[in-house]
Amino acid sequence: MPSIISITTEDVRFPTSLELDGSDAVNVDPDYSAAYVVIRTDASDEGHGLVFSCGRGNDIITYAIDAYSRLLLGRDIDELIYDLGNASKRLIHDSQLRWLGPEKGVTQMAAGALVSALWDIRARRENKPLWLLLSEMPAEEIVDVVDFTHIRDALNPQQALDILRAGEEGKAARIASLMTDGYPAYTTSPGWLGYSDEKLVRLSKEAVADGFSMIKLKVGGDINDDRRRMAIAREAVGNLPIAIDANQRWEVSEAIDWIKQLAEYDPYWIEEPTSTDDILGHADIRRGVWPVRVATGEAVASRIVFKQLMQAGAIDVLQLDSTRVGGVNENIANLLLAARFDVPVCPHAGGVGLCELVQHFSFFDYAAITGTQEGRMIEYVDHLHEHFAEPVRILNGRYTAPRRPGTSAEMLSASRTTWEFPTGAGWLEVGDRAAVTGASLVPAGGVR
Amino acid sequence: MPSIISITTEDVRFPTSLELDGSDAVNVDPDYSAAYVVIRTDASDEGHGLVFSCGRGNDIITYAIDAYSRLLLGRDIDELIYDLGNASKRLIHDSQLRWLGPEKGVTQMAAGALVSALWDIRARRENKPLWLLLSEMPAEEIVDVVDFTHIRDALNPQQALDILRAGEEGKAARIASLMTDGYPAYTTSPGWLGYSDEKLVRLSKEAVADGFSMIKLKVGGDINDDRRRMAIAREAVGNLPIAIDANQRWEVSEAIDWIKQLAEYDPYWIEEPTSTDDILGHADIRRGVWPVRVATGEAVASRIVFKQLMQAGAIDVLQLDSTRVGGVNENIANLLLAARFDVPVCPHAGGVGLCELVQHFSFFDYAAITGTQEGRMIEYVDHLHEHFAEPVRILNGRYTAPRRPGTSAEMLSASRTTWEFPTGAGWLEVGDRAAVTGASLVPAGGVR
Repeated sequence: MPSIISITTEDVRFPTSLELDGSDAVNVDPDYSAAYVVIRTDASDEGHGLVFSCGRGNDIITYAIDAYSRLLLGRDIDELIYDLGNASKRLIHDSQLRWLGPEKGVTQMAAGALVSALWDIRARRENKPLWLLLSEMPAEEIVDVVDFTHIRDALNPQQALDILRAGEEGKAARIASLMTDGYPAYTTSPGWLGYSDEKLVRLSKEAVADGFSMIKLKVGGDINDDRRRMAIAREAVGNLPIAIDANQRWEVSEAIDWIKQLAEYDPYWIEEPTSTDDILGHADIRRGVWPVRVATGEAVASRIVFKQLMQAGAIDVLQLDSTRVGGVNENIANLLLAARFDVPVCPHAGGVGLCELVQHFSFFDYAAITGTQEGRMIEYVDHLHEHFAEPVRILNGRYTAPRRPGTSAEMLSASRTTWEFPTGAGWLEVGDRAAVTGASLVPAGGVR
Repeated sequence: MPSIISITTEDVRFPTSLELDGSDAVNVDPDYSAAYVVIRTDASDEGHGLVFSCGRGNDIITYAIDAYSRLLLGRDIDELIYDLGNASKRLIHDSQLRWLGPEKGVTQMAAGALVSALWDIRARRENKPLWLLLSEMPAEEIVDVVDFTHIRDALNPQQALDILRAGEEGKAARIASLMTDGYPAYTTSPGWLGYSDEKLVRLSKEAVADGFSMIKLKVGGDINDDRRRMAIAREAVGNLPIAIDANQRWEVSEAIDWIKQLAEYDPYWIEEPTSTDDILGHADIRRGVWPVRVATGEAVASRIVFKQLMQAGAIDVLQLDSTRVGGVNENIANLLLAARFDVPVCPHAGGVGLCELVQHFSFFDYAAITGTQEGRMIEYVDHLHEHFAEPVRILNGRYTAPRRPGTSAEMLSASRTTWEFPTGAGWLEVGDRAAVTGASLVPAGGVR
């Protein structure tokens, strides 16, 4: 039997803090990083997976991936990749490791990277990009990979099957349209807090010219700055939707007050207005800021929290994040939950590798689950794509369909070598100028 | 200035799976473990901290503690221990590490161990056990160590101050009574799923004879077994309260059905009926099983989730866990939140070291916050206390007041050496008979 012979991890980081790309009210100095894993078998299979992080602690994730790897090493690869529901449960419900979450934080992200690397092997075997593999899979097999534990009060296997069966009508035509026309995107590139007003105007106008469906601005640092930047951006983009994103900066009542002061600029949604764990707080905010939509998800730990956000009527938009939860399986669960509650999914991307990974879920959602792109778009940020084997390609403000077999996680070997932390050539050159390194681990003025 | 010169971690595990001590419907084979840390300064300070876990993955926590240690090494110890609010924020809100939670899972537990080790140094400096240090601290200083981020809609600093001010009346007398009479305890020792009926009866009767306030049974494996064991236990203990604990085993409606089938045996509370993250599910269950109380907390990730559990009216009892959240500071936040919602705190203990650690919070709660023991008791399990510098001491079914300066985290050096995983003498002798080791990492029949 062909079996897993090696699972290797790499701590890959990019010194993005040097340019203040990705700066927001909470993540003031991220060094975009990938906890990277490759699974290899004695049948020459190769599966890649990654978890996105912000720099420090990326090695905690690689260490955790190594720990979970012991549950897979030496095992029959076919048994794993043709029964991905059980493969995922073996990792995520391990009777001892479970205590470290359960199903949240570092361990969930680590297990998820391995689960997704197994999907990468499966998709390569079948010579399809992940989205197409999922879209063409029988509904029963999709239901079989979903872990319904603790979400059955909102979505049970029969209901999931019904959703997927309903999605079969017109599926072939939608797959064909995805191949030719792709999927709508919005861009966050103009809106980082660290950018000058001039850069904001220039990038906002470029976004309109490039055909994006929306732009997004980071907010929450200072209300007067936010009002000025929103006014500038509104002037620059005309009627194009503008989303705003506070990255969990506010208390509940503070969020409502702040958003009301920005309402005259017609924000399309407010993203992460408060703690990602505050379901009831999000519900209060949604009631308080209507008609501004509430969006969240990049830091939501599991399907169990997403379930409640929708049960409580706390969100208008679900922002699935590919590497926050337990891999492909849990992302499918989140797509099906969203369909059940009729909440549109607009995935979180950016960072490093997230655009490459999340696109598959929106493509799959359109092809086989909801069958609509109404109110749906994938985030796009123009960073670090050159490091991937098949970088995302945007055409007329839309993601074009990925075609390479697999999950799109594969990063170029040269990039991984150059930016291996802390010994890669890139890091030896950057030295301690980036925030990731030891010299300035804690900001001088304390935190927040 | 005196500063931190070393922070060392140890992976200490005990082969408790050999005896099925601690077995329940979800944690079927725990090897009780401590991710252990010692902070040392050049002024001869020594602070101990630990995180409890179930075996596999304990090294992920020690690794994470090492990562957070870099934020403390070389720093002025006085600045840290006399401003523990900011010391905690430096770790927990670190701008890059925050992504790995935020405030949940491995990273929160690791940061919490370091925070608590700093408190250990502070308490040793002041020559007081933690509970007495906290109880005698000015209210303003207590409020100062609490992080009110994302809980202000339920508890703001002024409200916290008011609670503590109200607690000042009669405090000296309550401290004196704690010194002489201690604090009520209940015992979980009789009720593990792996125990025979004979052992259940014998230990239940012993619990009554020993003066405990309650016993607790693990449930959720099989309803007929649960009914039989509840009947046996009820017969054995007479009118003594019996709590039941499902360790997150059920879906929401399944929980309600199951508990109703045990209602005739008058369970005092049902603990962890469903996912620890399912706030709305707990609320539904509480409405469905009244008058059986609902309790949870040992796996609740943060004050933000506890806040919502109480806002939603989802729990009757808050089971604070000393090493799940961000250390002493976040435990104080949870005590104050519980006081604000008038929900009694009955800490989760057992495992290894949890009894030693949590007792301080109940003692502090009685002395300086709620001033009552009504409906309150500390869990007690008679495992592994012999490994601690000052083991808990139970007298007439009550915890006696700890007197040794510090947090009670200190484990004997000989125990740590013997049970260092995997190279300690104890482990070399046990070999691969315990579940913790590599041989049988995944149960034969798969999981769940």
